[in-house]
Amino acid sequence: MSTKHLVYALSLSLGAVSTQLAHAQAKPEVLVKQRQAVMTLQGKYFGPLGGMAQGRVPFNVQTVQRNAGFLDNLTRMSWDGFDASTRGVKSRALPGVFDDSAKFKQYASRLENEAAKLVTVSKSGDESAIKAQIGAVGKVCGGCHDDFREKQ
Amino acid sequence: MSTKHLVYALSLSLGAVSTQLAHAQAKPEVLVKQRQAVMTLQGKYFGPLGGMAQGRVPFNVQTVQRNAGFLDNLTRMSWDGFDASTRGVKSRALPGVFDDSAKFKQYASRLENEAAKLVTVSKSGDESAIKAQIGAVGKVCGGCHDDFREKQ
Repeated sequence: MSTKHLVYALSLSLGAVSTQLAHAQAKPEVLVKQRQAVMTLQGKYFGPLGGMAQGRVPFNVQTVQRNAGFLDNLTRMSWDGFDASTRGVKSRALPGVFDDSAKFKQYASRLENEAAKLVTVSKSGDESAIKAQIGAVGKVCGGCHDDFREKQ
Repeated sequence: MSTKHLVYALSLSLGAVSTQLAHAQAKPEVLVKQRQAVMTLQGKYFGPLGGMAQGRVPFNVQTVQRNAGFLDNLTRMSWDGFDASTRGVKSRALPGVFDDSAKFKQYASRLENEAAKLVTVSKSGDESAIKAQIGAVGKVCGGCHDDFREKQ
């Protein structure tokens, strides 16, 4: 099988992908699934750092550096998933995401900045500066969840 | 509220996270959800590149560079989710993932290498080299899916 055919077969085997390629914009349900995937992974990689900042998990600078790099990438992946077309799709996103998008985008921008700063600070190895910056990231996450996510 | 309290509240609000912090190892269901989240995002960011390699999507080097960076990170996120504890959890992973883990790990390692190479090649801006490398990434994805993922 040629590389071209292999890539084509692979594209067909990825449901979300064939949707994305067939239309200019992915279906709303796909966008919600993708943005929720980002949140799942942000939870995976922020969780242990939150634990370190609280002293419940032993501090490990290598883990912080690796997770900070992942979080820096993840924070740039989710925003296009909050497209207005997803308003009617079941999720915990409150209507404010679409009605007050300027405020939502402010959180998005703050999170990208704080996550990028965590990458920089983590390289310093300075435990207390790192823990403070983990707190700064967590504060943006928590603030946005308070304002824009349905309580469970 | 202090930063420490904010971070704690945030950790509690993330289901997967409190599980991860309470135990040395996340629950099997959480691990499967996390590795599936990675696959969802790999589909999101590989899809348009596969389309470019096939000539179905206009070639855009900025998109390739951005997506290659995301894919490079994503390829390093999923493997710990294929823990032996997840064998009984419903998913499309075939038993071979656990029974022939040497072969599965070989695919994992090849994918990491090809994705990292795509980052490098994408910076060159050489369209035909980039398309060939997209094909190389797709070939590993497709090979692993053929061997280790249940057909739909």
